Amino acid sequence: MALIVQKFGGTSVGNTDRIKNVARRVARYREQGDQVVVVVSAMSGVTDGLLKLAREITPLPDERETDMLLATGEQQTIALTAIALHSLGLKAVSFTGAQAGIVTDLVHTKARIQNISPAEVHRALDAGNVVIVAGFQGRTPDGQITTLGRGGSDLSAIALAGALKADLCQIYTDVDGVYTADPRIVPTARKLAEISYDEMLEMAGAGSKVMQLRSVEFAKKFNVVFEVRSSLNDNPGTIVKEESTSMESVVVRGVSLDKNQAKITLFGVPDRPGRAARIFRALADASVNVDMIVQNASHAGGSPMTDLSFTVDKPDLLKANQIIAGLKTEVGFREAVATENIGKLSIVGVGMRSHAGVAAKMFDVLAHEDVNIDMISTSEIKVSVVIDLAKGEAATRALHQAFIG
Amino acid sequence: MALIVQKFGGTSVGNTDRIKNVARRVARYREQGDQVVVVVSAMSGVTDGLLKLAREITPLPDERETDMLLATGEQQTIALTAIALHSLGLKAVSFTGAQAGIVTDLVHTKARIQNISPAEVHRALDAGNVVIVAGFQGRTPDGQITTLGRGGSDLSAIALAGALKADLCQIYTDVDGVYTADPRIVPTARKLAEISYDEMLEMAGAGSKVMQLRSVEFAKKFNVVFEVRSSLNDNPGTIVKEESTSMESVVVRGVSLDKNQAKITLFGVPDRPGRAARIFRALADASVNVDMIVQNASHAGGSPMTDLSFTVDKPDLLKANQIIAGLKTEVGFREAVATENIGKLSIVGVGMRSHAGVAAKMFDVLAHEDVNIDMISTSEIKVSVVIDLAKGEAATRALHQAFIG
Repeated sequence: MALIVQKFGGTSVGNTDRIKNVARRVARYREQGDQVVVVVSAMSGVTDGLLKLAREITPLPDERETDMLLATGEQQTIALTAIALHSLGLKAVSFTGAQAGIVTDLVHTKARIQNISPAEVHRALDAGNVVIVAGFQGRTPDGQITTLGRGGSDLSAIALAGALKADLCQIYTDVDGVYTADPRIVPTARKLAEISYDEMLEMAGAGSKVMQLRSVEFAKKFNVVFEVRSSLNDNPGTIVKEESTSMESVVVRGVSLDKNQAKITLFGVPDRPGRAARIFRALADASVNVDMIVQNASHAGGSPMTDLSFTVDKPDLLKANQIIAGLKTEVGFREAVATENIGKLSIVGVGMRSHAGVAAKMFDVLAHEDVNIDMISTSEIKVSVVIDLAKGEAATRALHQAFIG
Repeated sequence: MALIVQKFGGTSVGNTDRIKNVARRVARYREQGDQVVVVVSAMSGVTDGLLKLAREITPLPDERETDMLLATGEQQTIALTAIALHSLGLKAVSFTGAQAGIVTDLVHTKARIQNISPAEVHRALDAGNVVIVAGFQGRTPDGQITTLGRGGSDLSAIALAGALKADLCQIYTDVDGVYTADPRIVPTARKLAEISYDEMLEMAGAGSKVMQLRSVEFAKKFNVVFEVRSSLNDNPGTIVKEESTSMESVVVRGVSLDKNQAKITLFGVPDRPGRAARIFRALADASVNVDMIVQNASHAGGSPMTDLSFTVDKPDLLKANQIIAGLKTEVGFREAVATENIGKLSIVGVGMRSHAGVAAKMFDVLAHEDVNIDMISTSEIKVSVVIDLAKGEAATRALHQAFIG
């Protein structure tokens, strides 16, 4: 008898027929004798509908009250899921995040889980129930309702699996698992049977957005093994777990293309202390997320000058441009040039740690494809390059062919 | 500075514009320096929509999970109402029934309030907030979410007003207050400035359904003064309170016609002990609510026989007829005759206690109108008669003219 936590997102519970499908899937596990905890999101469209109501009243609703409002979405799904399980003859009981003992900090709309007291959940499981828990939500120590922000239901599931010492945590989604590359770009891409937390983090950071980074980080921190799999079929998914020795034999786990970055280059920046800090502090204060940063060597002759390039998320480009323009006099750069026509191409794999020459091979492949490299950034288990967007997909296929086959 | 509890029903908060209207009304009281607790229902249509979802899954959803589901309706309204108050520049904070300390028994979907611990509400009021509380809901001592059944939001407001020792409880509705008769039937009917709990109870029992009986009973039990008034205008409403000496000077407070009753007569019932008990026990077991019961004197000669008449709510007539038919052999009556063409006409007033001849005058008026009386039942402060439905409205006008003017 295993204890399994299963998480279903908004599409999987989007109407009562789909909720009945979820119940049938849960029932199959229950009938094998497993104990099952189900974590569900709001039915798709519900959260947006509630936010629309709030914004009909005021453009920027209070965050505590937004949490009070949004938490009802998941609460509706847990009740309907329990009702669907009852209709299959199973014992089931639903808990809000608060009732399930999910305690968070006080930061409304993006609270962090502080601890989970799963005594009530255990009691209900031991009484023979399937326990259904509202994802995305918790409560502060003094009983205020909070929500966890984007990807919060994944986080609820992983945190509950950790607190309950579950044997397995299954994240059901609309993809079959994690692939070596986006199958729409690389037809030969294949589903990975397993991947390490760090690889998953780098893949997610490189644009393969199966899950939010924070859920993977949480799973890594508390060593919660989870499986990403499809709610549309019974195929096994991808197991995400701590890296093992066998994982290191694979040099490159996956190739990822992020088309959602834009690049800004500042030409002729006076090379004096504090200039870079001033620029990136201003961007951070405006919540503009900067990914890659490259500073070229100073020009020879005259006063020392440098060129500075960095990437931001495309939707933030306008804001970033305005901030940079406002700093022109203060920082004293000569010219700022922005472009959206870039792709960030990455290869990821824990095996890189013990294999030399991976970056060199990558650059060779790209040179052979006549792809010019604009920026480079590396970590222990990843090499990323910024290239011309128009060549992104062909370059992805070439790297996949060279490293994975 | 007064402490006022204001309750707004589903129609008054039916969309975001109406919620903004509610907020403006609350703001006017707040700006006078009053402390305000607002109790709201679910937006109209929301509760029915949620029940429809549950019944798409199964015709008879579990009651605990139904409560979990339905409680989200009011939770949405409290958040939106708080957001609307913020947009007017007021401090406001919302509480679910559980957070407001409304503790109930364990009977899901029709829980009774056991006690209220309003410490959190007081704290929030003292911090300068308008406090918005979800009506219709509470929690069991061990933290399960419950709902209070029909009319539950009125009950929440009255119980909170009692627990908070509020100076006034205002029940906002779509009528201006309690009238001496239904203005659609009696054009000269006038709004009452005040009415006693008992009169209100008898008026409600007689078909003037401004509020559910249980809320009025609760107010009477805990001596909570409340005002029934319109959310569509600023007219003063009707104050409902303990009777005073001055109230007794009015003999008849109101005239009420209930068109929602049906009558069943059993002819030739053997007049032996236990027959009536058998019949009414069977009806009660099937949750058929019996209102008036009249047993005629036994017939002379032969074995003692009697005729037995009673009224039930019209929607229950079919069920009642089936139960009665099933008892024919056991009880041994000769024939059962049912009719829906009746009206129950009542006059209500605490002054009746000290005024003789009220019933006689009522019968005189009806005789003069050529109205035949079918059944009679009396209480200390009410006389009710069952008459032909076709004559109901004319008879109501005649009684109003004779007793109230």
